[in-house]
Amino acid sequence: MNGGIALGQMVQPKKVVEMEVQQGTIHIQHYCVYLIPVNHKPCSSVEAIMPSKPEILNRGTVARSRLFRADEIHLRFSNGEVRTYEKLCTGGPGAVLIVPLLDENTVLLVREYAVGIEDYHLALPKGAMDLGESLLEAANRELKEEVGYGARQLKFLKRIHLSPAYMEHGINLVLAWDLYPERLPGDEPEPIEVVPYPLDRLLELVMRPDVCEGRSIAALFMAREWLAGNLSLEST
Amino acid sequence: MNGGIALGQMVQPKKVVEMEVQQGTIHIQHYCVYLIPVNHKPCSSVEAIMPSKPEILNRGTVARSRLFRADEIHLRFSNGEVRTYEKLCTGGPGAVLIVPLLDENTVLLVREYAVGIEDYHLALPKGAMDLGESLLEAANRELKEEVGYGARQLKFLKRIHLSPAYMEHGINLVLAWDLYPERLPGDEPEPIEVVPYPLDRLLELVMRPDVCEGRSIAALFMAREWLAGNLSLEST
Repeated sequence: MNGGIALGQMVQPKKVVEMEVQQGTIHIQHYCVYLIPVNHKPCSSVEAIMPSKPEILNRGTVARSRLFRADEIHLRFSNGEVRTYEKLCTGGPGAVLIVPLLDENTVLLVREYAVGIEDYHLALPKGAMDLGESLLEAANRELKEEVGYGARQLKFLKRIHLSPAYMEHGINLVLAWDLYPERLPGDEPEPIEVVPYPLDRLLELVMRPDVCEGRSIAALFMAREWLAGNLSLEST
Repeated sequence: MNGGIALGQMVQPKKVVEMEVQQGTIHIQHYCVYLIPVNHKPCSSVEAIMPSKPEILNRGTVARSRLFRADEIHLRFSNGEVRTYEKLCTGGPGAVLIVPLLDENTVLLVREYAVGIEDYHLALPKGAMDLGESLLEAANRELKEEVGYGARQLKFLKRIHLSPAYMEHGINLVLAWDLYPERLPGDEPEPIEVVPYPLDRLLELVMRPDVCEGRSIAALFMAREWLAGNLSLEST
């Protein structure tokens, strides 16, 4: 393709856009032009000139309960569009989700009742961080409370969000291995069932109807890639 | 191990538990006994005798905004423990998240502003279902609105939840392929940037700081397994 337009690059509006196409589909979207590849050649760049962030005109809390707070936010986008959105805000210092690896092919899951779906389900252990606690300290404490193991090795994997579109809530994924039995009392209403599961049956696991938590599924796939040596993590 | 206790099986409380251990760790947790394997042998079963679901004593709405509703629920667990929880409830008919496959190695992502994190991010297209719309119809409509493509082939992948512990919200993952250009007007405040990404660079993608949505990461890994022929889906 001539014209020097990189894949994903946004082109400023023109009344007439002139270019020659050698291979690909030109996709005109409002005032942007995208090149979508039709062959399998990896794109050379996915970076783009992003519009600047919307200006926050004002915000205020519109609903609050013991656990939740919803804020309303008025925004002006860089193109002048004004919108009003609601978002759920967090209160505490954050949360951790742990991938406890008993050995290189066994992950420890927990089965517990979840009031959101009003059913039992199978997922990775997780919990809120306490004030003053580091991310890895919180992960090890939750592991001891929910699974009955401590970890001699812990590593931050990635911070992910539940629904960036309307929730502030994120959770920090932590790998835990070199485990040893240690239990701390938790605040669960009934004993949590600990379920060891072989990672070489991960696809069977994620298709189970009682495995339904998106962030646990994401963390399990990422942990498997890390175990296979395909993910390099920065030291924490 | 003698005694016929299967992996993950729950044993009813006894004053004296007698068993012989040949290999493994016996993990006594309140009134349950679990066998956690210490070697790599895949567990033969992860099914367990689950306690019956808690009885819902009463529920009521404690906070409400234009978009959100929080309910308080009083529960009695099967062991007699009584707890009060809050959960976020959904209103509409549900939501869909689409994995648009331009070819067998190219997924189409969207970059848009998300007020939850107050930043732009890169994720799969998604949206709320309209009343009366089927799941696959909603997926195709959202695809046309956000990405500018329609799909001749659509397949339900899995329903996942954001946070089963305190949210009712789920989303239906849908694979879309055999795409053709077609645009429907959406309600976005500014044009959505469409970013093609090669699936053979999935690990690089999920480690990008602007890729932070857990459900998109889960869906991308599952789509890659489906493309590789490792996931069999029921016909919809």
